[in-house]
Amino acid sequence: MPVRVPVPATGRGPAVSDHPTSDGRLRVTYRLTLEEGEQARMRALGIALEQTVGMPAAYLPRGLEEKVVGRVEEVEEIGERRVRAVVSYAPEVVGEDLAQLLDLLFGNISLQAGIRVVAVDWPPAILGRFPGPALGIAGLRERAEVRERRPLLCAPLRPLGSGAGALAELARGFAAAHVDLVKDDHSLANQPSAPFRQRVEACLEAVAGANRRTGGRTLYLPNLTGGPQDLARRVAWLREVGCPGVLVSPALLGWANVSWLARSSGLAILGHPSWTGSLFARDHGLAPELVLGDLFRFLGCDGVVYPNVGGRSRFDLRTCEAINRALRRPRGRIRPAFPVPGGGIDRSRVPLWIERYGPDTVFLLGSSLYAAPDPFEAAREVGVAMRGAGR
Amino acid sequence: MPVRVPVPATGRGPAVSDHPTSDGRLRVTYRLTLEEGEQARMRALGIALEQTVGMPAAYLPRGLEEKVVGRVEEVEEIGERRVRAVVSYAPEVVGEDLAQLLDLLFGNISLQAGIRVVAVDWPPAILGRFPGPALGIAGLRERAEVRERRPLLCAPLRPLGSGAGALAELARGFAAAHVDLVKDDHSLANQPSAPFRQRVEACLEAVAGANRRTGGRTLYLPNLTGGPQDLARRVAWLREVGCPGVLVSPALLGWANVSWLARSSGLAILGHPSWTGSLFARDHGLAPELVLGDLFRFLGCDGVVYPNVGGRSRFDLRTCEAINRALRRPRGRIRPAFPVPGGGIDRSRVPLWIERYGPDTVFLLGSSLYAAPDPFEAAREVGVAMRGAGR
Repeated sequence: MPVRVPVPATGRGPAVSDHPTSDGRLRVTYRLTLEEGEQARMRALGIALEQTVGMPAAYLPRGLEEKVVGRVEEVEEIGERRVRAVVSYAPEVVGEDLAQLLDLLFGNISLQAGIRVVAVDWPPAILGRFPGPALGIAGLRERAEVRERRPLLCAPLRPLGSGAGALAELARGFAAAHVDLVKDDHSLANQPSAPFRQRVEACLEAVAGANRRTGGRTLYLPNLTGGPQDLARRVAWLREVGCPGVLVSPALLGWANVSWLARSSGLAILGHPSWTGSLFARDHGLAPELVLGDLFRFLGCDGVVYPNVGGRSRFDLRTCEAINRALRRPRGRIRPAFPVPGGGIDRSRVPLWIERYGPDTVFLLGSSLYAAPDPFEAAREVGVAMRGAGR
Repeated sequence: MPVRVPVPATGRGPAVSDHPTSDGRLRVTYRLTLEEGEQARMRALGIALEQTVGMPAAYLPRGLEEKVVGRVEEVEEIGERRVRAVVSYAPEVVGEDLAQLLDLLFGNISLQAGIRVVAVDWPPAILGRFPGPALGIAGLRERAEVRERRPLLCAPLRPLGSGAGALAELARGFAAAHVDLVKDDHSLANQPSAPFRQRVEACLEAVAGANRRTGGRTLYLPNLTGGPQDLARRVAWLREVGCPGVLVSPALLGWANVSWLARSSGLAILGHPSWTGSLFARDHGLAPELVLGDLFRFLGCDGVVYPNVGGRSRFDLRTCEAINRALRRPRGRIRPAFPVPGGGIDRSRVPLWIERYGPDTVFLLGSSLYAAPDPFEAAREVGVAMRGAGR
């Protein structure tokens, strides 16, 4: 492929900064696996072209190359046929559109082998287009009336197939046990066994009743799905009935729909990782902390569920901690969001996880509660441990 | 994990049928890679539970197991630590919601290693919830006034960074050369270089002018992006200005948004595979023909762009032909859709590809046209070859 993109003469550059670059460009760091005989710099140039103009530089109209084509900033061999490359992009190639940002990050190159996006430096010009969490950690604490700096407990309503009444009884029990957040399992959509409105009404009422009795402030978060019309109708109705928030799966609901919710609904948003897992292969995709950390947070999730180390997922402790950091670190006006580790957390080990992950964490306990002789009593005990952690 | 799901005594069963099963269940065939010491049947049972109730069967309320948990129908060892397993699901666990269908197919298990969905038997109860293409192959032929049974030619407007006027000049040239479909590059969203409405107006006018002069009927398909409000406004406006169709990236725009377009917009829909590639790993994800064939078609794409064998993508000829088959095969009231192979198709080899893929194909030629001394003349020549193929 004929290429004419100017590149610095040296293959090595300074370590990638964790801070926005001063030139305002979006810097993307890739880890590449080369094919036999492939040249590292040519591969990086190929990505810089593919993700912007989609054609060889030789055929570009005059003047466009400098303005639009990604700029290869660094190319470094890090092993046999392994390369770390940094390409920077002008914010103007993204425009106002979140989908176009995802397209730039991993659109067409998702169809190529051996490319992993391992780091992104977000310039203010791009961060400014994201709403970020409407509540964030502080706002969700306020809504749940958790004033001490302690972790929060979240319990799911399961299983799919249960009627609205049975799910509401679970919600009532968890609320009475002072669980902070009670959320639908992400499989609960609008099935005939528990249609959306019927389920939400029953659960809201059950939780409100328990809150009145205990003086607590458990929040119920139903799973929100639907195409544009259903979505708008459901959100309007949720506000009408006083629902405090929702669970959403951004990769299924639509990325831009989540931002719309964050900007306009007033609902607390808990993000679920359903359907994102294929992005997290070892040599392909994006680093989990970029998707479940940065992107989910930027889109507007106040908390992000991820599969904790030790369950069936491929995440190790390092990955989980990287997600935690990405969700909490200062990002200008974009509020920090709660990490919500779930899956494979045994209730007996919660104190250890609190020590490891810290107080700005929501712990999602599912099977470990349901496996207890009395799930509500088990939840109450975990809650006591959490309140202890806040003192 | 304690499991009590009833399974047939034998590990082998009949070959998976290519037709909906008579019991109306959604049958999903997985290819699994087992971990050291893992039992095939336990792994399949784990999936059947994870994708439905999300908890071990031992803790399920009475009566739910039979109704809701996936049923392991077949488990067959096909190599060392390699297993083919078939699990069937009751349509009721999906309900009316397309996102929940995706969640059932590959939601939480996307976060586990070693699972690939290789086949799905779609029961009528689930197919009936998809709109399918509003036009399909026959309807798109009609809209483009291509009455003979010949392949169609599609050319992209590139590159990103060009102004609306420059893109419109390209559209005019391709339309004058009788290119059937002129589409935006999928990177064109609403960037300042060519804002959406300005670009669409200019290109529609340029194409209409060329059509008047030639008596032809080239269709211009802009790339459609945006959150729920932008989307609704843009679609209303596109109808107002007489735009015949759009390009969309379902994984970025939101799956349900595509169905909404198909049901209500009257626009022809060309689907783009941006962001889907990570689903197509060798031992993880879903078979490309399930996503770019079945799902994109069911959602409502009248044509589906995919990376043809020979470009930078990982698709081989077998995969491309499987996508073609999935898009065209009879599916009750769901209309067939055009395969749109693109990427790596050299204009000189188009006659060979026509022979291979047949007349119900849209050929997307990008770089091969732009690399020609005169792209419009090159397009005209390819068009002549296509018209020859229809005789």
